[in-house]
Amino acid sequence: VSAPFLAVWHGDGVVRGATIALDPADRGLTLGDGLFETAPVFNGHAVWLGEHLDRLMSGAAAIGLDITRRRIETAVAACLAEIGPTAAVLRITVTRGAGGRGLAHDGGAPTLLVTLAPWPKGILNRDVTLATARVRRNEYSPVSRLKSLSYLDAILAAREAASAGADDALMLNCGGRVASSTIANVFVMEDGRLVTPPESEGVLGGITRRKVLAAAHDLGFAYEEAPVERARLTTAHSVFLTNSLRLIRPVTRLDGEALPVSREPLTVLFEALCSMIADDCGVDPQKADRP
Amino acid sequence: VSAPFLAVWHGDGVVRGATIALDPADRGLTLGDGLFETAPVFNGHAVWLGEHLDRLMSGAAAIGLDITRRRIETAVAACLAEIGPTAAVLRITVTRGAGGRGLAHDGGAPTLLVTLAPWPKGILNRDVTLATARVRRNEYSPVSRLKSLSYLDAILAAREAASAGADDALMLNCGGRVASSTIANVFVMEDGRLVTPPESEGVLGGITRRKVLAAAHDLGFAYEEAPVERARLTTAHSVFLTNSLRLIRPVTRLDGEALPVSREPLTVLFEALCSMIADDCGVDPQKADRP
Repeated sequence: VSAPFLAVWHGDGVVRGATIALDPADRGLTLGDGLFETAPVFNGHAVWLGEHLDRLMSGAAAIGLDITRRRIETAVAACLAEIGPTAAVLRITVTRGAGGRGLAHDGGAPTLLVTLAPWPKGILNRDVTLATARVRRNEYSPVSRLKSLSYLDAILAAREAASAGADDALMLNCGGRVASSTIANVFVMEDGRLVTPPESEGVLGGITRRKVLAAAHDLGFAYEEAPVERARLTTAHSVFLTNSLRLIRPVTRLDGEALPVSREPLTVLFEALCSMIADDCGVDPQKADRP
Repeated sequence: VSAPFLAVWHGDGVVRGATIALDPADRGLTLGDGLFETAPVFNGHAVWLGEHLDRLMSGAAAIGLDITRRRIETAVAACLAEIGPTAAVLRITVTRGAGGRGLAHDGGAPTLLVTLAPWPKGILNRDVTLATARVRRNEYSPVSRLKSLSYLDAILAAREAASAGADDALMLNCGGRVASSTIANVFVMEDGRLVTPPESEGVLGGITRRKVLAAAHDLGFAYEEAPVERARLTTAHSVFLTNSLRLIRPVTRLDGEALPVSREPLTVLFEALCSMIADDCGVDPQKADRP
């Protein structure tokens, strides 16, 4: 088993060594030509796996990458069988495979890599500080709406944030409006009303983002998808991030300025998510996350 | 030696098998977190290697990737020694290595991959047709000015162009102005005056682009770096592309519309480049390129 991982699948089988045998012409490595998904694993069950696979298959169709869902399901099941009921982080990576020269080349057989990493305990519902990055998300590219292997814009934004002493970056789009963090969707809450930017703003259609909107519906919160100006983050009752691993994170500072956090409604939403996850995999994620 | 390659270096030595042993957590593969360079090789000599390494080292500093020039030079020299005087395509790929979780993580030791592929004869100075892509280059990110592994925007643009029956895509930036093709810089020639967009427009600072500007200076052409609107491409005397492998390519069509090509000055520039390359590596690239 590879060093930081509990289980690895590459190609057509589970990998036992510390490395994978990769074609040096693999377009995932040479061009960031592929997609990925990450999901928490509790109790031997990848949370909302069906929805992650729906998004992956839809993204693959969008970029013309021809991989079967069955192949991915087989690899994920094999990795999950390796680790038993341990909490873990699932990552599915697909690339266009080793192609000939030429960017538009269809590549060879797609490469599939599935990994399970140990669960990094204590990450749920943690406060987060943000710094606005100079690097912006490109709403004029479908890539900004995909979980793609071409992640360098977000990496540079994350490095800017780290340099500024913040936990994550607020990324604006090229129009200067709020897009997302480097790894999470952004919500503002104003008078019990949730607002999050639509995908057309250069935003990944997050699975947890969608679950929060569903929970808001069930709980009777008003909500809408609408463009959000940065200034609105400093006047909202709360700002929070959502992603598949960390669920909900209240934002406590933006560019050094303290932001108000209205804890109670965020806790209600977080508990609703935990309850939905418990329904999906039979265990409360807060229990698995406890250090 | 790996299938499509004449020579491969990975890690700290020449690779003899068809695959490389890669850490599945390598951030080049998982996040497009790295850079590359490509250069033609004639007569055992990588053309303008020093300038490619200057750009690579400068890009590495810009993204905080810590690799030594000496390490890269050693690998390139070892690969060149494998193939003798054969014409080839050199590609140098560096990644941030296998990092822990977190986008801002510095990674482990950088991964170095150097490959030499057979020279695809008959590619110099060939006419090219373009289609304007909907995908745009992001001038609000340093990545648009780097030869990075996060290349999916350009791949999608190239696929759009292929669908439209064109050879390459014209990529606009988010401001709607001309940036580049997916793999080449764009020049317009108007009354003997060369214009090409500056790097601030979301443009890679191409080595051949710089050599063309130097040749223009020596030949007494006027030239400037300035923003270029798309409409100007249809009224120019000539439009051409430059890149390290194909040198100069006259653009004959844009979105199905025939563009005028003033052949004589383009031939003068192409011959000047060939002469500069012959000075650098002792052989005229036109001879090596002949099918």
